[in-house]
Amino acid sequence: MYHIFDKDYFVVSATIAPRNVEEVQAIARLCNEYEIPLWPFSIGRNVGYGGAAPRFPGSVCLDMGKNMNKVLEVNSEGAYALLEPGVIFFSLYGYLKEKKLDDQLWIDTPDLGGGSVVGNTIERGVGYTPYGDHFMMHCGLEVVLPTGELIRTGMGALPDTTQPTVEGGRLDQQPGNKCWQLFPYGFGPYNDGIFSQSNLGIVTKMGIWVGDMNASIVEPRMGYQPYLFTFPKDTDLPKIVDVIRPLRLQMVIQNVPSIRHILLDAAVMGTKKSYYDVDRPLDEEELDAIAKKLNLGRWNFYGALYGPKPVRDVLWQVVKDAFGTIEGAEFFLPEDIKEKCVLHIRAKTLQGIPTIDELSWVDWLPNVAHLFFSPISKISGEDASKQYALTQKMTLEAGFDFIATFTIGMREMHHIVCLVFDREDEDQKRRAHKLIRELVQVCADNGTHIALMDQIAETYGWNDNAQMKLNEKIKNALDPKGILAPGKNGVWPATYDRSAWRLDANSERTRP
Amino acid sequence: MYHIFDKDYFVVSATIAPRNVEEVQAIARLCNEYEIPLWPFSIGRNVGYGGAAPRFPGSVCLDMGKNMNKVLEVNSEGAYALLEPGVIFFSLYGYLKEKKLDDQLWIDTPDLGGGSVVGNTIERGVGYTPYGDHFMMHCGLEVVLPTGELIRTGMGALPDTTQPTVEGGRLDQQPGNKCWQLFPYGFGPYNDGIFSQSNLGIVTKMGIWVGDMNASIVEPRMGYQPYLFTFPKDTDLPKIVDVIRPLRLQMVIQNVPSIRHILLDAAVMGTKKSYYDVDRPLDEEELDAIAKKLNLGRWNFYGALYGPKPVRDVLWQVVKDAFGTIEGAEFFLPEDIKEKCVLHIRAKTLQGIPTIDELSWVDWLPNVAHLFFSPISKISGEDASKQYALTQKMTLEAGFDFIATFTIGMREMHHIVCLVFDREDEDQKRRAHKLIRELVQVCADNGTHIALMDQIAETYGWNDNAQMKLNEKIKNALDPKGILAPGKNGVWPATYDRSAWRLDANSERTRP
Repeated sequence: MYHIFDKDYFVVSATIAPRNVEEVQAIARLCNEYEIPLWPFSIGRNVGYGGAAPRFPGSVCLDMGKNMNKVLEVNSEGAYALLEPGVIFFSLYGYLKEKKLDDQLWIDTPDLGGGSVVGNTIERGVGYTPYGDHFMMHCGLEVVLPTGELIRTGMGALPDTTQPTVEGGRLDQQPGNKCWQLFPYGFGPYNDGIFSQSNLGIVTKMGIWVGDMNASIVEPRMGYQPYLFTFPKDTDLPKIVDVIRPLRLQMVIQNVPSIRHILLDAAVMGTKKSYYDVDRPLDEEELDAIAKKLNLGRWNFYGALYGPKPVRDVLWQVVKDAFGTIEGAEFFLPEDIKEKCVLHIRAKTLQGIPTIDELSWVDWLPNVAHLFFSPISKISGEDASKQYALTQKMTLEAGFDFIATFTIGMREMHHIVCLVFDREDEDQKRRAHKLIRELVQVCADNGTHIALMDQIAETYGWNDNAQMKLNEKIKNALDPKGILAPGKNGVWPATYDRSAWRLDANSERTRP
Repeated sequence: MYHIFDKDYFVVSATIAPRNVEEVQAIARLCNEYEIPLWPFSIGRNVGYGGAAPRFPGSVCLDMGKNMNKVLEVNSEGAYALLEPGVIFFSLYGYLKEKKLDDQLWIDTPDLGGGSVVGNTIERGVGYTPYGDHFMMHCGLEVVLPTGELIRTGMGALPDTTQPTVEGGRLDQQPGNKCWQLFPYGFGPYNDGIFSQSNLGIVTKMGIWVGDMNASIVEPRMGYQPYLFTFPKDTDLPKIVDVIRPLRLQMVIQNVPSIRHILLDAAVMGTKKSYYDVDRPLDEEELDAIAKKLNLGRWNFYGALYGPKPVRDVLWQVVKDAFGTIEGAEFFLPEDIKEKCVLHIRAKTLQGIPTIDELSWVDWLPNVAHLFFSPISKISGEDASKQYALTQKMTLEAGFDFIATFTIGMREMHHIVCLVFDREDEDQKRRAHKLIRELVQVCADNGTHIALMDQIAETYGWNDNAQMKLNEKIKNALDPKGILAPGKNGVWPATYDRSAWRLDANSERTRP
């Protein structure tokens, strides 16, 4: 789905699916002995972050999810789960349903539920409930280092079981390792971050906090209300963003909501051809017509309220009043809309029920491939407008429809620009690749395709690439033979010639 | 204040107060050249985490706070601050007041406001508002590495200013580095954690999120209500904890509240002698009498409600009903109490107004010194009871009063046992040191004195000390000469003989 190079460029030499941690360690040791590059993935349905293919052609792929796919524990008192890499959002949700815990415990899911919870979290993916920042909500990792050693982070570094008897008392239940999923930090340097978006280790277990929405002691009961606001004009964007900022900062908006461009919703509901059979980007009038047809705005805000009903009522009043200041704004609850619509999908996503319904937006064009470009923006109308104007202009000029969403985090927005193209059309492929490289260059910010990892990493070049040099130092210390995922996120081991393996828009077939 | 060894044991050979980042880099380079151990501190009022003294006697101390003490930026739209190491909680709060931002922006402060915001955060200290987990709420670091290189983490790795002009558009305002304090992660490995409780770098700038409690767009206005619940019986502890767990998990309790043992509040209000002039731990009857005299419970819960009034009203009803299930529970608002009391202090702390009023608890005994022992516990009545019973028994048997508080985090409690002793009394010193070593051994968990760092680190020994070996690998890669804070948090560079520098209860004067 991410074809900007030829299909066989990022090819693997073999794929191994280990059955347990010891096998992962043994494989790492063998790869060190024979100096074979190893590229781990959890499930491989990494729609958001570049798929399962290795950055370095010919790597041995490690399929962590095929056999290591157990929910090891769900603790309803502690409101956490301990997972293996192969557990996908659907299976975690299914586990909760099976154990009848889904009424009390809520997971957080991204737009599509088919990915690995571990994989998504360590790649720092997000979802849409108040637990949307998955990496912030993880607690405790077990990691095989590139040289094969096994570590546990945080409180997991305490021994598994000890029942010391001392003069003066006996502690039957050791508080130590029972806290692995309760307290993330432990003692000394907090290591977890270096194993995210990285090639410094292979995560074999991960704890993650889940929301407790219904502990029985609390009355009135917790509850949930998703909603949609539609805004009629393209130029409403800055107003919407400036309304959101204080609401989000004050946690009146408690979760990670999104402002979606009309074409994203349109693409979920149908193909481009189902609206207009044209071979060029849709124009303003056509977008207005589509919005009217779908009974949506040019921008559409999907949010939710969480808490006991009286709390939700207050929050709703505040949210309604705030968005009501924008002319033409309308709001809808899921029950207001009879026909199939995006709000019905978001009503699930925003309470952590995984779906794959949104995947249909990628069918906007035939033979679809896609790229994401997701710069970070301040939650400010001015910043959002500028970023929108520039990226939209560049996208239209490259001959593509502009499809995008803003997801609102704690202090920033991810502006996710979805670039859809026909992978059988060589000209489209070339234009898409050129466009995304220009976008990265202009916005000097986050992007996602493995072929772009070097370019993106290089934009993080403050003080002569000081951060990259730090990452390389750590990489070389932990992986002296450079076997683990060389080139991932732009971090190359000393055993590789970074410049020889660099890719750019004009070097599709260049290999050293 | 932390004398368990002789005064001159953790002595420094010199203290340097750099005036700027370049000087910090130059000092690091010189220390590498001459192989001199360097021990940085921010302010040195590290009451919670062991003071300013170096773990390795004779180190050169780096006083980061004396000259580098500026609030570099407070951004009210982004609700963040960018700080140098010498900014203390009082001065940050003072800055907000001076700029008339204190009505809108709330900082989070620990019990005492005299410490460094940067120092507290990178040592992973906590406060009591919804932003209580300071490390979770920090965003962006600037760090001098042990070998003198300067890095910025997260979005700070993007260049400072770039205004690229490209075909198709011009981005006047670069979204890049303006996001340093808005989005913590950036691209690639997230490095910040390894600079916390660590000796891998010297933090020279740090961003931290502050609460936005009053953005004018939101009506009804945000607000705040602190409260106290008192519980009459020592045996109420497990019931209190079991009431709190679901409330905290569901964010009905939105902040980091605390359950305080009667003697902690008593110690804030007076010396031991002012209650009973005895040379032994107080007994049950005496504790009851003190509680009665102070109109407090044997356990006292200090919490607060945040939000618009109608929201607070709902939350308050839930909290009142939940604690009302415990026989004899009473509640108080600050205005209910005329005389000076701990609730009046907590009413400030829980809204992020720094004070030093609580420091008076350390005057419980004359010539006071103190140690903290703070094991982590599940938010469970059973776990809390066991930990309380054991630590209390050991403390009383060692001849000390039991003074403690539980602070409730996202999924766990820090059980902070405050060990107060007379530093002029050799026998008390010996007993205190012996007690805390036994406590660490029994609970195999967090403690705080620099002399205990090795012992504590060793308890995190899962899989043959695998995590420590990882930390040592990173340490040796980043600090090959081992100059930066050798031994901090138990991490020794390869250039030192860890076993030779080990300290235990019987080796007060042993030096290699």
